[in-house]
Amino acid sequence: MSVIAPPAFREWMAAVQSRMETTLARLLPAADALPAKLHDAMRYAVLGGGKRVRPLLVFGAGEFAGATPEALEIPAAALEMIHAYSLVHDDLPCMDDDSLRRGKPTVHVEFDYATALLAGDALQAQAFHVLAANPVAADAATQLRMLDVLARAAGSRGMCGGQQLDLDAVGRDLTEPELELMHIHKTGALIRASVNLGALCGEPLDQAERERLDRYAKCAGLLFQVIDDILDATADTTTLGKTAGKDEKDDKPTYVSILGLAAAQRKADDLLTESLDSLAPFGTRGGRLADLARFIARRTF
Amino acid sequence: MSVIAPPAFREWMAAVQSRMETTLARLLPAADALPAKLHDAMRYAVLGGGKRVRPLLVFGAGEFAGATPEALEIPAAALEMIHAYSLVHDDLPCMDDDSLRRGKPTVHVEFDYATALLAGDALQAQAFHVLAANPVAADAATQLRMLDVLARAAGSRGMCGGQQLDLDAVGRDLTEPELELMHIHKTGALIRASVNLGALCGEPLDQAERERLDRYAKCAGLLFQVIDDILDATADTTTLGKTAGKDEKDDKPTYVSILGLAAAQRKADDLLTESLDSLAPFGTRGGRLADLARFIARRTF
Repeated sequence: MSVIAPPAFREWMAAVQSRMETTLARLLPAADALPAKLHDAMRYAVLGGGKRVRPLLVFGAGEFAGATPEALEIPAAALEMIHAYSLVHDDLPCMDDDSLRRGKPTVHVEFDYATALLAGDALQAQAFHVLAANPVAADAATQLRMLDVLARAAGSRGMCGGQQLDLDAVGRDLTEPELELMHIHKTGALIRASVNLGALCGEPLDQAERERLDRYAKCAGLLFQVIDDILDATADTTTLGKTAGKDEKDDKPTYVSILGLAAAQRKADDLLTESLDSLAPFGTRGGRLADLARFIARRTF
Repeated sequence: MSVIAPPAFREWMAAVQSRMETTLARLLPAADALPAKLHDAMRYAVLGGGKRVRPLLVFGAGEFAGATPEALEIPAAALEMIHAYSLVHDDLPCMDDDSLRRGKPTVHVEFDYATALLAGDALQAQAFHVLAANPVAADAATQLRMLDVLARAAGSRGMCGGQQLDLDAVGRDLTEPELELMHIHKTGALIRASVNLGALCGEPLDQAERERLDRYAKCAGLLFQVIDDILDATADTTTLGKTAGKDEKDDKPTYVSILGLAAAQRKADDLLTESLDSLAPFGTRGGRLADLARFIARRTF
């Protein structure tokens, strides 16, 4: 990644990531507030790691729509809390049973099973608290819409639904459309919500602009997952910061298992092209979001 | 209970409970919507059981403040979804490991561990979706405040925090103030939120009224838990619809284990008196909430 992205984009990305670390540290309960073990686990799950892809997309779409960084911090933090809680629960023994995440022991390994469950539950509530308690949209009605976008993306017809489709798929042969449906829910819903929430913090967009942005978000979300599948099959555990080769070991259908590696890579290329095409009518105004799509396509971890 | 409550209150209670069954069935995703197993588990967890204490308190406080039943259905459903998700997660093997709830097999027994985890997660998101997508307060700013009240009550400084304090307490000797702190979080937070959310759907109350109502809610919440502890020690599994005698078996501190049965009953009597005293200045206008406190004090399951 670092050899391909333009320096200005790399600097912007590092600045957003650094800003989010500070923001998340501020918006999470203090580690010494009662119950300390729970708050410690919540902070452990969220801070000090991760690419912050969802916050980057919030900032990319928000800057596109003219929003301020102070406003964008809030939905970006809410999305990252939802994402972090989903990783904590996904890593539990009853789900993927994984012991490594972001290069560290997973929460149930570092703490215990019950605390990891509760930390995930509490992170979800904290995400909605953060977005309800800090007005960032132009009016309260828009802010309510933002909360609804987040809730739908997180719920049974979004991320949780995708996790269930993932569970149901273990050991089964899926068609490519079935796999795509699973991923549109599992990772696509939150990524799409990231772009939409960022845009809702800014100036109103017209319908054509909203639709192009949403098409970009859909392609970027699926692209993210295709690359995830490719990395799981080709990268090593140290580079990934999580256990590599898990999908094949767990007999999970992936773009690589269904299409083969070469066709999965072509699929990723096509999705990158489509996401860039969606931005083309915006001209240079879409440059940041285009760089983000390229980053998602070319990441190595 | 049924021999003590006045007939008009019993009728009102049955009407709210019946209305909530219809409302929850409508506000949960359809059982045949994809992923069907997840939606089936969510509906199983919520529908067809429970005393609906939180919805009853929403309606009691809401009618006190002049809100319409159509408005009150929404926060009542959101609270019941949060409550139901907490029961699903609390019953999991890594927490209380219980197989019976509301007279039926618990969700992880009826479905499986991972599906129960996801159903709980998705119910929490659904609660926030329902409250964000259905405007019921006089204005969007008040509705945002309602979402924040719900999120705080559900989170690490509310219900989830209480669960963690409960975990931390197993096998330890707690003082009565420590036990009270745990219960104020674990069950008290959602019960207090029920009263406050109901009131926020109606006409604005003055500060003295809000404070009295909040004091009532705090007492009723703690009262609910003292009675829970007494019933766990004295009632049988069939009457409770959940496993009786669990607290002692799990070496959990309770009002009965710390104070003894007689003093726990006196504590309950005192809390009932205090909650009724909080309502006294309201005269007959507080009648419904007073009946609700008596119901909580005299329930047998």
